[in-house]
Amino acid sequence: MYAFKIALVFILLLSGCSDQKQLSPVENKTEAHLWKLVTAWPPNLPVNHEVTEEFAKDIELMSNGKLKVKVFNAGELIPGLQVFDAVSQGAVQMGFAASYYWSGKIPASQIFTVVPFGMTEKGSLAWIKFGGGLKLWRELYEPFGVIPYPMGSTGVQMGGWFNKKINSMEDIQGLKMRIPGLGGKVIAKAGGNPILLSAAEVYTALERGTIDATEWVGPLHDKRFGLDRIAKYYYYPGWHEPGPQMEMIINQKAWDQLSEPLKKIVEASIAKSGLTLSTKNEAENARALQQIIDEGKVELVRFPDNVLSNLKKMNLQVLEEEAAKDEGFRKVLKSYQDFQKLYSSYEAVTNKAYDESRDIESK
Amino acid sequence: MYAFKIALVFILLLSGCSDQKQLSPVENKTEAHLWKLVTAWPPNLPVNHEVTEEFAKDIELMSNGKLKVKVFNAGELIPGLQVFDAVSQGAVQMGFAASYYWSGKIPASQIFTVVPFGMTEKGSLAWIKFGGGLKLWRELYEPFGVIPYPMGSTGVQMGGWFNKKINSMEDIQGLKMRIPGLGGKVIAKAGGNPILLSAAEVYTALERGTIDATEWVGPLHDKRFGLDRIAKYYYYPGWHEPGPQMEMIINQKAWDQLSEPLKKIVEASIAKSGLTLSTKNEAENARALQQIIDEGKVELVRFPDNVLSNLKKMNLQVLEEEAAKDEGFRKVLKSYQDFQKLYSSYEAVTNKAYDESRDIESK
Repeated sequence: MYAFKIALVFILLLSGCSDQKQLSPVENKTEAHLWKLVTAWPPNLPVNHEVTEEFAKDIELMSNGKLKVKVFNAGELIPGLQVFDAVSQGAVQMGFAASYYWSGKIPASQIFTVVPFGMTEKGSLAWIKFGGGLKLWRELYEPFGVIPYPMGSTGVQMGGWFNKKINSMEDIQGLKMRIPGLGGKVIAKAGGNPILLSAAEVYTALERGTIDATEWVGPLHDKRFGLDRIAKYYYYPGWHEPGPQMEMIINQKAWDQLSEPLKKIVEASIAKSGLTLSTKNEAENARALQQIIDEGKVELVRFPDNVLSNLKKMNLQVLEEEAAKDEGFRKVLKSYQDFQKLYSSYEAVTNKAYDESRDIESK
Repeated sequence: MYAFKIALVFILLLSGCSDQKQLSPVENKTEAHLWKLVTAWPPNLPVNHEVTEEFAKDIELMSNGKLKVKVFNAGELIPGLQVFDAVSQGAVQMGFAASYYWSGKIPASQIFTVVPFGMTEKGSLAWIKFGGGLKLWRELYEPFGVIPYPMGSTGVQMGGWFNKKINSMEDIQGLKMRIPGLGGKVIAKAGGNPILLSAAEVYTALERGTIDATEWVGPLHDKRFGLDRIAKYYYYPGWHEPGPQMEMIINQKAWDQLSEPLKKIVEASIAKSGLTLSTKNEAENARALQQIIDEGKVELVRFPDNVLSNLKKMNLQVLEEEAAKDEGFRKVLKSYQDFQKLYSSYEAVTNKAYDESRDIESK
């Protein structure tokens, strides 16, 4: 009887300890998670690489090691263009990429990254977060068991590297240019020849004249890639990618296994790293452009008005054609364009009018 | 003896539970923190209010309640303009405000918020985070035991609400305008009469004609404040505040008591809430401006070129005068202007050239 009482005391005390632990999910050893994060970029891609490492470290520290994220860059575990499938199938828990890579599977995904002649980062993020964009994005990814988040931008891009001058639309006839996505479709409509090349092929193709032109990212990434050594003209503005949003995707089942504190830690880290990515790109792009100008080997050229005007018209045709082909694209484009219309009235009297005011000569 | 053994078992079991808990600092009850956060704004100020509440909730959730932040808006615990002193003295642990409120104490603090005709949010944040700004900011606040962080922007502001037209610099002569800070000094140099009024006084002063004009924040805040009901003209662009940065400040001693995970949780929450603040302001400002336009009671007017040109010239004089008076101001302004020069070359061929390209007529 006494032994029974002691046993009971043991059981109660032990279950007491155990219960106490269950009250605090973070302390429960069974709640430790080891996640794999795959990226769509080669290792050591500037900014993206540091930001991804920071992201993983932040999460491990904030969660007291309850959620560890191991980063694999493109090719280390799977090829960069298989990130979405790997996350969807649960082979990995997270992927860091850009949504337009999955346009073959989900045509509308392109719109969440960027639209030619569309909104820049601030407007596009305002649409995503407070204009209905994110809701549509989540709906489109739901059948694949994937949750998307915007995570920073590379900024308004440059127009690309050219080895021939573009004075009129005739100069685009037959132009062989590495330019993917909607921008590529516009170039095709203009009579050009958009070519898809992997990162590894671009430099050699431009150097050997296999292509006449290529767009890449912006001054920082372009210079690291050596494009300023093999092209004559650096065109602007980047009408085709005015501030692409990067994307963090998470496997739904893995997400469901996280406690609420861990979910919030992941979301806060996405915001922090996204902000770092956008801001660091701005600072480093400004420095890299200055170096390119100082070295004086490349001529900075603005696309002529008549070319921009025609590309803009053709872009509207491309968007209409894509919308006609796919219901998801149509629905997302409508939401995007409605917001863009509202936002552009505001931009005209704030961001744009202000930028112009700084250029007025002091008397 | 038997009783002793049972007591021992109790003690061992209890200390067993206890030891296990001490292994994980986050679970140690002595590490629970209750912080007070004071803001410089009245309760229910749109966006700022929601973001501050989100910030406090995020931290409590992510830290499993180890760090609780209780929010007090201006006047609830201390007046809004005493936020810096309260944080510095340790009366509270955190403050959410704008650094230019402390320009009487630290003249250079204005530059971290915004500079007339200076950089907009992206450029100013790039300077702060990756151009040396934050280091200078921390150095200036260190003697006060205060650590600063940037935390979101209200965007490029409007020029303000006027009840008389500004066609030339003569119209600024004697103009009674509520406009604080460096912008106010520029208006004074132009022969105007900058007036400092608290939030509570602005509406009545403009309605009764005690002042001829007032700047406030942007369409969202201005409309909530009712300024569209009592002014004839809504001028743009907001040359005086092109994207002010909000500021989160933390008491150094309180900060030193946080574990590394808690520090990172606070930093990530600042980034997340700052991004929300900036993005939500963009979306809501666009909507509010559209409402103001639709209601048709107010005329939207752009400042004439000659006025902007003269204000720009006078602003440079004001900045030089401030720099001559204070070493800290001189040092921070030099860093800011060097970065602005670099950044503006980049902006010219990216953000600005792109904005312009969208206005070219389609043919």
